[in-house]
Amino acid sequence: MSDLATKACIEEHHLMKTFTFPNFREALKFVNQVGELAEEQGHHPDIFLAWGKVEITTWTHKINGLTESDFILAAKIDQLYKS
Amino acid sequence: MSDLATKACIEEHHLMKTFTFPNFREALKFVNQVGELAEEQGHHPDIFLAWGKVEITTWTHKINGLTESDFILAAKIDQLYKS
Repeated sequence: MSDLATKACIEEHHLMKTFTFPNFREALKFVNQVGELAEEQGHHPDIFLAWGKVEITTWTHKINGLTESDFILAAKIDQLYKS
Repeated sequence: MSDLATKACIEEHHLMKTFTFPNFREALKFVNQVGELAEEQGHHPDIFLAWGKVEITTWTHKINGLTESDFILAAKIDQLYKS
């Protein structure tokens, strides 16, 4: 289970995780990778980008809570960061 | 004076503006344009990206308030959106 998913068990409404980077450009690159993934999955998280930091939040608007799509997206975003 | 700048006169601490788009991909494209501009200016705003929406917030961390750099960045981001 990803860290994002672990946190979700406590928060229930949404999954949130912060990823850090050595500079703005690397963080922006990650936003693009997450964006591509979101388009592929047809499920879009909220993405907050600041210098050296990307914060991802996902939940399913239709039910205003978590569905399998959120856990799948979260796990894949974790994989992206690690790769 | 840009809309962002106008709002800043009231908020004082930071400039914030929301830009809307017809889909996620267009919003992500704008994030990249703003990112390139930020790198050019050497001044990086906080960027919040959601489906069809980009929210930009800028202030100068060093003084925890607004400087000329914020107003210039805000005006250039407005231009980007209009172009």
